[in-house]
Amino acid sequence: MRNVLGALCIKCGAEHQAGDRTCTCPKCGGVLEIVYDYPYIKTVLTREKLAGRRDPGFWRYRELLPVGEDSAPPPLRVGGSPLYRAERLGKILGLKNLYIKDDGLNPTASLKDRASALAVIRARDAGITTLACSSTGNAASSLAGNAASLGFKSFIFVPERAPAGKLTQLLIFGAVVISVQGNYGDAFRLSAGAIEKYGWYNRNAAINPYLSEGKKTVSFEIAEQLDFTVPDYVAVSVGDGCTIAGVWKGFKDLYAIGLTGKLPRLISVQAAGCCPVNRAFESGAPLTPMEENTIADSIAVGVPRNGEKALRAIRESGGMAVNVSDGEILEAMGLLGAAAGVFGEPAGAAATAGLRKAVERGLIPEEALTVSIVTGNGLKDSAGARRAAGEPISIPADMELLVKEFQRRHIRA
Amino acid sequence: MRNVLGALCIKCGAEHQAGDRTCTCPKCGGVLEIVYDYPYIKTVLTREKLAGRRDPGFWRYRELLPVGEDSAPPPLRVGGSPLYRAERLGKILGLKNLYIKDDGLNPTASLKDRASALAVIRARDAGITTLACSSTGNAASSLAGNAASLGFKSFIFVPERAPAGKLTQLLIFGAVVISVQGNYGDAFRLSAGAIEKYGWYNRNAAINPYLSEGKKTVSFEIAEQLDFTVPDYVAVSVGDGCTIAGVWKGFKDLYAIGLTGKLPRLISVQAAGCCPVNRAFESGAPLTPMEENTIADSIAVGVPRNGEKALRAIRESGGMAVNVSDGEILEAMGLLGAAAGVFGEPAGAAATAGLRKAVERGLIPEEALTVSIVTGNGLKDSAGARRAAGEPISIPADMELLVKEFQRRHIRA
Repeated sequence: MRNVLGALCIKCGAEHQAGDRTCTCPKCGGVLEIVYDYPYIKTVLTREKLAGRRDPGFWRYRELLPVGEDSAPPPLRVGGSPLYRAERLGKILGLKNLYIKDDGLNPTASLKDRASALAVIRARDAGITTLACSSTGNAASSLAGNAASLGFKSFIFVPERAPAGKLTQLLIFGAVVISVQGNYGDAFRLSAGAIEKYGWYNRNAAINPYLSEGKKTVSFEIAEQLDFTVPDYVAVSVGDGCTIAGVWKGFKDLYAIGLTGKLPRLISVQAAGCCPVNRAFESGAPLTPMEENTIADSIAVGVPRNGEKALRAIRESGGMAVNVSDGEILEAMGLLGAAAGVFGEPAGAAATAGLRKAVERGLIPEEALTVSIVTGNGLKDSAGARRAAGEPISIPADMELLVKEFQRRHIRA
Repeated sequence: MRNVLGALCIKCGAEHQAGDRTCTCPKCGGVLEIVYDYPYIKTVLTREKLAGRRDPGFWRYRELLPVGEDSAPPPLRVGGSPLYRAERLGKILGLKNLYIKDDGLNPTASLKDRASALAVIRARDAGITTLACSSTGNAASSLAGNAASLGFKSFIFVPERAPAGKLTQLLIFGAVVISVQGNYGDAFRLSAGAIEKYGWYNRNAAINPYLSEGKKTVSFEIAEQLDFTVPDYVAVSVGDGCTIAGVWKGFKDLYAIGLTGKLPRLISVQAAGCCPVNRAFESGAPLTPMEENTIADSIAVGVPRNGEKALRAIRESGGMAVNVSDGEILEAMGLLGAAAGVFGEPAGAAATAGLRKAVERGLIPEEALTVSIVTGNGLKDSAGARRAAGEPISIPADMELLVKEFQRRHIRA
């Protein structure tokens, strides 16, 4: 890879070669970050070159991805999700220039496809055709789907409490799903042992530094979709921390190669019932575990393994942290749906809930160019959505009763 | 509209002006078809012009849509769904050139977004800001989502048996959902009465001729994605008949303006438990109602209101009809997922099940360029998907037990 210089430990600062087998720092165990040769990339990736590319997916940014020059694109169209100008929603929130990035429109319906697609490509290019992770959520389904698209095997370890509905997507993609009698920690440990024993590719976001390299492409798209105007603020929901770290890396990459002229401020949104990253950001104290008490299960991460990367992203960007209640998340789901036509899962709508709160607190100027990222599709969690959805009007098939019911409820028909 | 000449009754052949209030033939009540000025369109829509358009959605084909020259594009990105070359799946089916069109990657996760987006644009341009339909499925959710994106109101009439999960998406999009105590017929009648009384825009696919004009854009995309090589065969699942009629119209439009040089043969796939269109095609007898006995609820239409249009499309194309069992549909869901990384709902996977059967019967040559359309996302119906999905391996967190379990099940880890 001509474009990658190596991997830097974000804990001890040691420099390493970038590889797929050694995910963490051999010296201190810290999380690694991929380092690029920006002066070189500057010469091979320009706005004009991008404008001429027809592929709408994340592969259009391959010069900024940790993949070889001859690496073949992924089979599924990952990324290329729409960015909507949301005037009516902006009016409700008090923002004149609000955009919604609907990343639920990815092949397996979440932003995590960006990470998993990169993982399967890295695996393929390293000659590994079996991948594994422990997760019940979007990481697992995106791994299963992207592995299937290349004819690769995936092994997914889930805790026994994982709801049957969430396993369906995995099994349809042909994943071998191992339901571990125990909690998430037990599932994680068994997956780690099996990955070690069988030599599978490790897609545990906790430690694989390539995953946030996939996720950063959401920022490339936001910038390009805004004709390389960088937003003043980007709101994103935070669980493990890998996504917000990726979002920040994306904007930094573009800035480093001169495709953009500024950086956004990040709004880190967590559920009030599980906000270890935001708590550490506010207090300045080290990260400590929290209970996982929220309906937004995709960001219910009590021990965020990319917490340090996330904290650095918020701080470097001059950003802010906002916690939201489950009620506020459900309200935001309704607002996104009714005022923008976007159906996000609770974790996906959380960013919009946080943005709303930040505006109410006077932290975001009305004129600011603001993007809220919807990280997953509401169809993923219709039980959660049902709580935000209200009830239908139940009547017999009688026109007079319908008219009366509209009057009673003050519905203008 | 410079590009539209009028509307032709497909029953009695009478010509009419194209309008939004009179959906069916005033003379005989037949379904209308929009007629275009192809010689004119030929002068304004070329391959080169298309190649220069950055909008990936269906609006890129606006010269072939029944919309005014100055009509603004829809807010949501409708269409622009990926077409995947499916080598491994093709091998399993016995096809060397198989492509999958994943139309589940639309804003509300089905092909019907193409129809609903056109409906809300027609309504807007006619000064109507309230739309209605009776449906529990993709027509309803796509109407609700696309209406919400423009700030329009939608009224959806559903029979009381409609599952709560299906109502969630509608309610999140802010639709007024009227649950009618009775069956689908009762819901339809009440909706018709209310549409008449309140002057709402009618999005009942049964009679609105613009809906298949939206749906035809899936064929425009297939052709353009294949660099204007037309497939030999296109497989599509059939319920009401509006979608296959749209698919056919799309290929005919392209042929008429010289963007392509041939037409495909259509494979009409219905569920064996509900196949009135295919039965009429095979027997040559008139369409007669059938029970609705299949898990593929999006195509469980016992009285297809666009049946005549569908029959004409299959016949004109020199096509064929294939019925598939629920078991074959479930198998196809698994094949699409595991061999192509595409998760389709039962009705969406039915086309692939039918294609498989047609190949087995020797009806499709191995070398044929074939496209199977997945019309809806599997996340829409995870209960149905669960039946296709199998079961996870349940074990304690113990590596030795894991190894033994892999051996017992002949899983190569």
